[in-house]
Amino acid sequence: MGSLNPLQTAWQQLLQMVKGTIELLPNIIIAIVVFTAFWFVAKFSRRLIKNLTRKKQSRNLGLVLARLSQGFIILIGTFVALAIIIPSFKPGDLVQLLGVSGVAVGFAFRDILQNFLAGILILITEPFTLNDQIIFKEFEGTVENIQTRATIIRTYDGRRIVIPNAELFTNSVTVNTAFDKRRLQYDIGIGYGDDIAEAKKIILEVLHNNTDALQDPPPEALVVDLAGSTINIRARWWINPPRRADAMDTQDAVLTELNNKLVAAGIDLPFPTQQILFHDQTEE
Amino acid sequence: MGSLNPLQTAWQQLLQMVKGTIELLPNIIIAIVVFTAFWFVAKFSRRLIKNLTRKKQSRNLGLVLARLSQGFIILIGTFVALAIIIPSFKPGDLVQLLGVSGVAVGFAFRDILQNFLAGILILITEPFTLNDQIIFKEFEGTVENIQTRATIIRTYDGRRIVIPNAELFTNSVTVNTAFDKRRLQYDIGIGYGDDIAEAKKIILEVLHNNTDALQDPPPEALVVDLAGSTINIRARWWINPPRRADAMDTQDAVLTELNNKLVAAGIDLPFPTQQILFHDQTEE
Amino acid sequence: MGSLNPLQTAWQQLLQMVKGTIELLPNIIIAIVVFTAFWFVAKFSRRLIKNLTRKKQSRNLGLVLARLSQGFIILIGTFVALAIIIPSFKPGDLVQLLGVSGVAVGFAFRDILQNFLAGILILITEPFTLNDQIIFKEFEGTVENIQTRATIIRTYDGRRIVIPNAELFTNSVTVNTAFDKRRLQYDIGIGYGDDIAEAKKIILEVLHNNTDALQDPPPEALVVDLAGSTINIRARWWINPPRRADAMDTQDAVLTELNNKLVAAGIDLPFPTQQILFHDQTEE
Amino acid sequence: MGSLNPLQTAWQQLLQMVKGTIELLPNIIIAIVVFTAFWFVAKFSRRLIKNLTRKKQSRNLGLVLARLSQGFIILIGTFVALAIIIPSFKPGDLVQLLGVSGVAVGFAFRDILQNFLAGILILITEPFTLNDQIIFKEFEGTVENIQTRATIIRTYDGRRIVIPNAELFTNSVTVNTAFDKRRLQYDIGIGYGDDIAEAKKIILEVLHNNTDALQDPPPEALVVDLAGSTINIRARWWINPPRRADAMDTQDAVLTELNNKLVAAGIDLPFPTQQILFHDQTEE
Amino acid sequence: MGSLNPLQTAWQQLLQMVKGTIELLPNIIIAIVVFTAFWFVAKFSRRLIKNLTRKKQSRNLGLVLARLSQGFIILIGTFVALAIIIPSFKPGDLVQLLGVSGVAVGFAFRDILQNFLAGILILITEPFTLNDQIIFKEFEGTVENIQTRATIIRTYDGRRIVIPNAELFTNSVTVNTAFDKRRLQYDIGIGYGDDIAEAKKIILEVLHNNTDALQDPPPEALVVDLAGSTINIRARWWINPPRRADAMDTQDAVLTELNNKLVAAGIDLPFPTQQILFHDQTEE
Amino acid sequence: MGSLNPLQTAWQQLLQMVKGTIELLPNIIIAIVVFTAFWFVAKFSRRLIKNLTRKKQSRNLGLVLARLSQGFIILIGTFVALAIIIPSFKPGDLVQLLGVSGVAVGFAFRDILQNFLAGILILITEPFTLNDQIIFKEFEGTVENIQTRATIIRTYDGRRIVIPNAELFTNSVTVNTAFDKRRLQYDIGIGYGDDIAEAKKIILEVLHNNTDALQDPPPEALVVDLAGSTINIRARWWINPPRRADAMDTQDAVLTELNNKLVAAGIDLPFPTQQILFHDQTEE
Amino acid sequence: MGSLNPLQTAWQQLLQMVKGTIELLPNIIIAIVVFTAFWFVAKFSRRLIKNLTRKKQSRNLGLVLARLSQGFIILIGTFVALAIIIPSFKPGDLVQLLGVSGVAVGFAFRDILQNFLAGILILITEPFTLNDQIIFKEFEGTVENIQTRATIIRTYDGRRIVIPNAELFTNSVTVNTAFDKRRLQYDIGIGYGDDIAEAKKIILEVLHNNTDALQDPPPEALVVDLAGSTINIRARWWINPPRRADAMDTQDAVLTELNNKLVAAGIDLPFPTQQILFHDQTEE
Repeated sequence: MGSLNPLQTAWQQLLQMVKGTIELLPNIIIAIVVFTAFWFVAKFSRRLIKNLTRKKQSRNLGLVLARLSQGFIILIGTFVALAIIIPSFKPGDLVQLLGVSGVAVGFAFRDILQNFLAGILILITEPFTLNDQIIFKEFEGTVENIQTRATIIRTYDGRRIVIPNAELFTNSVTVNTAFDKRRLQYDIGIGYGDDIAEAKKIILEVLHNNTDALQDPPPEALVVDLAGSTINIRARWWINPPRRADAMDTQDAVLTELNNKLVAAGIDLPFPTQQILFHDQTEE
Repeated sequence: MGSLNPLQTAWQQLLQMVKGTIELLPNIIIAIVVFTAFWFVAKFSRRLIKNLTRKKQSRNLGLVLARLSQGFIILIGTFVALAIIIPSFKPGDLVQLLGVSGVAVGFAFRDILQNFLAGILILITEPFTLNDQIIFKEFEGTVENIQTRATIIRTYDGRRIVIPNAELFTNSVTVNTAFDKRRLQYDIGIGYGDDIAEAKKIILEVLHNNTDALQDPPPEALVVDLAGSTINIRARWWINPPRRADAMDTQDAVLTELNNKLVAAGIDLPFPTQQILFHDQTEE
Repeated sequence: MGSLNPLQTAWQQLLQMVKGTIELLPNIIIAIVVFTAFWFVAKFSRRLIKNLTRKKQSRNLGLVLARLSQGFIILIGTFVALAIIIPSFKPGDLVQLLGVSGVAVGFAFRDILQNFLAGILILITEPFTLNDQIIFKEFEGTVENIQTRATIIRTYDGRRIVIPNAELFTNSVTVNTAFDKRRLQYDIGIGYGDDIAEAKKIILEVLHNNTDALQDPPPEALVVDLAGSTINIRARWWINPPRRADAMDTQDAVLTELNNKLVAAGIDLPFPTQQILFHDQTEE
Repeated sequence: MGSLNPLQTAWQQLLQMVKGTIELLPNIIIAIVVFTAFWFVAKFSRRLIKNLTRKKQSRNLGLVLARLSQGFIILIGTFVALAIIIPSFKPGDLVQLLGVSGVAVGFAFRDILQNFLAGILILITEPFTLNDQIIFKEFEGTVENIQTRATIIRTYDGRRIVIPNAELFTNSVTVNTAFDKRRLQYDIGIGYGDDIAEAKKIILEVLHNNTDALQDPPPEALVVDLAGSTINIRARWWINPPRRADAMDTQDAVLTELNNKLVAAGIDLPFPTQQILFHDQTEE
Repeated sequence: MGSLNPLQTAWQQLLQMVKGTIELLPNIIIAIVVFTAFWFVAKFSRRLIKNLTRKKQSRNLGLVLARLSQGFIILIGTFVALAIIIPSFKPGDLVQLLGVSGVAVGFAFRDILQNFLAGILILITEPFTLNDQIIFKEFEGTVENIQTRATIIRTYDGRRIVIPNAELFTNSVTVNTAFDKRRLQYDIGIGYGDDIAEAKKIILEVLHNNTDALQDPPPEALVVDLAGSTINIRARWWINPPRRADAMDTQDAVLTELNNKLVAAGIDLPFPTQQILFHDQTEE
Repeated sequence: MGSLNPLQTAWQQLLQMVKGTIELLPNIIIAIVVFTAFWFVAKFSRRLIKNLTRKKQSRNLGLVLARLSQGFIILIGTFVALAIIIPSFKPGDLVQLLGVSGVAVGFAFRDILQNFLAGILILITEPFTLNDQIIFKEFEGTVENIQTRATIIRTYDGRRIVIPNAELFTNSVTVNTAFDKRRLQYDIGIGYGDDIAEAKKIILEVLHNNTDALQDPPPEALVVDLAGSTINIRARWWINPPRRADAMDTQDAVLTELNNKLVAAGIDLPFPTQQILFHDQTEE
Repeated sequence: MGSLNPLQTAWQQLLQMVKGTIELLPNIIIAIVVFTAFWFVAKFSRRLIKNLTRKKQSRNLGLVLARLSQGFIILIGTFVALAIIIPSFKPGDLVQLLGVSGVAVGFAFRDILQNFLAGILILITEPFTLNDQIIFKEFEGTVENIQTRATIIRTYDGRRIVIPNAELFTNSVTVNTAFDKRRLQYDIGIGYGDDIAEAKKIILEVLHNNTDALQDPPPEALVVDLAGSTINIRARWWINPPRRADAMDTQDAVLTELNNKLVAAGIDLPFPTQQILFHDQTEE
């Protein structure tokens, strides 16, 4: 349509653009100032809410509100800033603005929104809280932080694992420290020639004498397998702070004591055993 | 369009916004009060319905109704509160409000809705109930709670597992305690030189004498494998409360007794056996 | 728009809401009564159809019709109840009502609809029926029930497995009891020094003498492997009720007899054998 | 809107509904009669087309046409029946009727449509036909039936496997009986001290004498591995009806003969061999 | 609406349908005739194009054009036939006709369209051609045919594998015969006491004397592992027609010769070796 | 509607179609000519751009532009040809034309578009270039070509691997030749009785004397495991052209030398060792 | 419609196209010039922002802003260039222009957008930064660069791994160097006859004397397993710069020292031990 002198038209359009941009400049500057103000208000509101909800039982709710209020204020700020730049702007236009195939954008933003929502729901439903020790797939460690996008775990050997919240939300999680006590177990293989009752007695004795093992629920010693070379007796005992470090320590003490006591009582902890039927075929 | 004095326009728009916000303040306060009221009504209605449905056979239905009524009242409360803040608000606008690419939001909310629905359907169809012992993928334990988002399992050794309801809904679940009795089994390997009939007799004797093993259905002893070093006989017996703790105890008793009786009867529980054809090639 | 006295407007709106709710109360009560009536009609129609179709060959069709009629009547009941509460309600509005991003709801309902449809199609196409013994992935047991959402399997050792119908519908299923006979097999390893023909003769003799093994199709004994330590002969025989319990029993009888007969005939069932080239390097 | 006497309105609406239902009753009865008629026409047309296409080369096409014509006639019947009940009904309304979020229904029906289409395409493109022996993932057996939803396989030991057509359509399938001959192979391990040429000669001799092994393409014997304890020679021969039963029989004959001939010729089939460097450290 | 005498209305509607169907009959017959004509034209056009493009370098393009032209003519035929039956039919109506939730149909057809497109793209981009030997996932064999839906592979032992084109298109494929030569390799383990240089010399000698092994690129012998019991030397040589049968033959020749030559030169091919520290604990 | 004489109407419609087709013939011919012209222009433009961008640093950008310009010109050609055949054609109609459920087509084309885009992005972002040696999943080889649909890799033993670009784009790729040097390593197990320091000295000596091993960064020898039978020392050294052939050669040289030097220095490379507790139970 | 002389019409349309193209030429040239200008402004703005944000704590934010500003300016440039070529062009038209089934394009672009967004979010949320050592699935190395599409890792042995950002964003990542210290561990197996307390003392001594092992948190030695042939004691110690090279060095030192000290103290590091029950069956 109307392309009498394309060169001129193009030039004029370019000029008009430049002019329009210059006219918009003050608006843009005000918008940036306003947006920055909103940004700081958002940050402040976040910190305020966090401080008001320091108490243990409302901390998670506080974190949620803080996060939501910050996001909400920044969103408002964005709208206001846009409305300042483009006076005819309406919120509904934003959706149009995103444009370039809304579905594609939707899909792209999907992961972000999912992680954000999953993070909030983890805070609200509290499957675990900060300082819990959890297992997720092949990762295990102490929960350090539940962020907007991901949950941070610190492994027992001092490495950080970053798990997207959506992953945590849609898969099973094991929380080792959910209850106030936890059972440990170790399978001890005694010889086929040894007295099962005697071995059980010694195992229970060791568990009763261990300072970390609880007496209620009581420790147990159960035959679980008539295995290839050994009769396996499972020692089971409960410990009270169910944390990893404690579990390692009590296991160290129990195993050391078990080894000493059983050997002292003449009970065998046999090596893997094989029966050999021997045929000498040496050609002489 | 109309950008005579952009600075002024922007300033006026800003002023108008601030003024609008102040005018809305009383509405916002009323809305918060009303919403809080609805919130407490929702909570109260939930507890009321729960208490009214304490009886065993209607408890699950009660949990469902309680959950639905709470959600419904909060939804109504949200609509009322919004209608107070924005008098021209209509429910239909909410969908628009969600905006920013509805598909993305839909996808993001999908996991939440799915888990919520799955939770309700688990309560209604009752594949398992509280205190059942279930196996799901690599996890096993006692069902502690069926929440809105997830089902909580307590492992036998005192750890908590959080399984999203949608996972439980779309995958196979094994319920160990669904029926009132359950069969246990243990494969015992006797020597190739021993009498199969004799061994079977002793095994059945042990199972008949065990106090936990049921006599009806009767225990069985079946040859299942002519294995490398042993003839494997499978001892099978039923126990009545099919819970894990009972299974462990009866297995302990059966295995101890089996070992003692079989050895006493001179029946071999042989070690892994190998036949060696020996060629001495020592260079002398 | 029109915010002269927001406080008053809000208050009036609140009052109007309360008033509207009170006016609706009788409608709501009638609606609940009507819906409950429909609910019982639905339940009754389901039971009626089930009873009318007790006969073996039409039982599955009966289950399908019963299920569909129940669902249909409840749906009608829902429409009627809604029409009573909101006189201006039209079925088409329901879709709108679901609102809040229809796609999300659609996705959430998808699993439920899929399982429901899959359940009906399993009943119609009958890949298996009640009391069949099936294998699905790592699960095996007897089909106890084909419900709306899931198929219930009872394992041979008395545990329940709940398999979502959609899973059964989109994956391969093995039906052990589909045909009236089934072949069992067991690989017997004889020594390299033994006579293959002799061993085969004894194996076939044992299978012919076994009361459970069918004579037509006849049992077979085939060399399948010249393995490391043994020549493996596969004994194959057919049993008539192809159920698990029968398979276990006949296998027990066959294996016991095979072991006795082969040993009696001087045929070796050798242990794993190794040839050792020995170099004594003891420093003396 | 118009809620002067809600109780009355509700009552009238209920009455009107009941009246409408009664007036519709004759229509419903006619509709059921008509639909049943269509149902039988559909069944008859299916059987007719099947009988007309008994011949081998057009059987699959016949199955497809029979299936399509049945489905088409039932669809027409549904439309006619609906048009009788609701005189103002138009086909286009059906889509609306399905309602409740068409996407959800679409997704739910997807699996059914996919399996139906896949079944037809398997019949047309004929990757395999009835009585072929196929391998699909971990399943192997003889194709018994290609149904609308699934393909039925009978394992060699008399069990039924139900594989959804969509699975077969989108994954690789191995057809053992696609060609008229098939090669079998068996790796024989001879001793390191034996003569490779001599062993090969005996293997080829055995294969040439076997009645089932084809002479064209000729059998082969190839060294494939200088393994730990043995030199592995691969015997390869072709059999003509490439079915499983034949393969088992010929393998039985070949292996028996190979063992006898090789041993007779003094060629070793050695046991797994190990070299031991021995250090006696007995403390005396 | 207008249900004065429903019975009559229904009857008249039924009559009208029957009458309409009869009036349409001639159209339907013409439509079938026309469609059949188009069908044969399509088949003929396909064969014609195939014959015109017999030459090696344009054969694939010919196959593509033949396939597309056939599909196009049948599509036209369908439109014409439909236009004859329903004179007011317009192509745009077809989409409507498919109805019953277009998304569901779309999803169902998706696999078919994908495989069709993938098949054409495989013919055009030629990752492999007929008679190539390819590996796809766990399948290996010679490409027999690239069909519309699937690619047919013949395994070396005479079985057919049907791989959906979409699978081949979206996953990695290995083409063994893409280049005119290919390297083979075999790891030979010599004893720790042997001379590495000597062994290498013999290996290269064998490879140079082998008639199938190319001299350019030259064969190689490289130490690759100081393994548990052996020093592993990798023999690598190139063969010219890189087909499976040739590879098997040359490997047979090389391995036989290597074994003979190495043993003749006194180089050890040791059995797995273990060092035993022996403690006699026999209680006497 | 208007079906007075259906036979006539149908006949006339058929005639009109034939007539319309004949009238369109010249247009079709012109369209084909025009499209062919565009096709050659596209090919020419591609070659031109490729030739203009021969230089190393702009070659990839050239490949991208060549590919895009060719695609763009062919697209224009298609539009022009269509506009010639159907004068009333508008580009917007193309989308309609694709018809038959656009979603299905979209899904079907998705893989093609994805691979095309992925190919261009690989060329632009250059994770690897031609002649790089890469590892992708279980495949390893030299990059031969980055085509529109797939990337071609040549394995070291002369086979071709075709990897779809979308696969390469969405998964991790290892580029062995990305940097100018690369470290090799080999774990050597010495006896528990040997001197670790001595062994380390010899290993470093060997690495320093090797002509291919770089002196900067220096070679290293580190104890990494106190394994079952050996103390494992890891020899690590850098090589400069980090290509596979060089790595194999230097490893050959290092291993040969290491074996010779360590043995000469009296350091043991022990066989797997086991301690045997011997109980003679021979019944005499 | 209007096809009086199709040949003429086609010809005229072709002429008009050519003429239109020529008239557009100056516009196209200006557009290219303008676009190129924007391109350089974008590049310059990127570099400017990068240089302004060199400081450690704002570097990531700088990278983000630089990347966004560049993208934004190029987008503006594209719009301007298009507006110059087609004066009637409006941004909204771009979406239409993309055409050819927007969903397909959306899906195709999805991966690109996802990776781009994921890259920005990794920079902002900082799960790891440049020079961190991370583990992702089976890959481990030092982060070299966080690009728009992918994150580049350099393995410790000098190879490059290219990981798409979307992969890193939606899966768990382990960051080895997140904290300033990290724990190393090594399991040492001592003999069953050795004194556990003595062994622990020596292990702790070695760890205390090691210069790299921190004294706070203190090193530990814990019994972790009564294994088949050994009692396993886990040595655990912390190192301060938790980088791979340091870990290797300290492990080398600790293992060497442990071996020397334990052997010197007469503590056994036993070989795998087996108990042999010996039956001499040599036929004499």
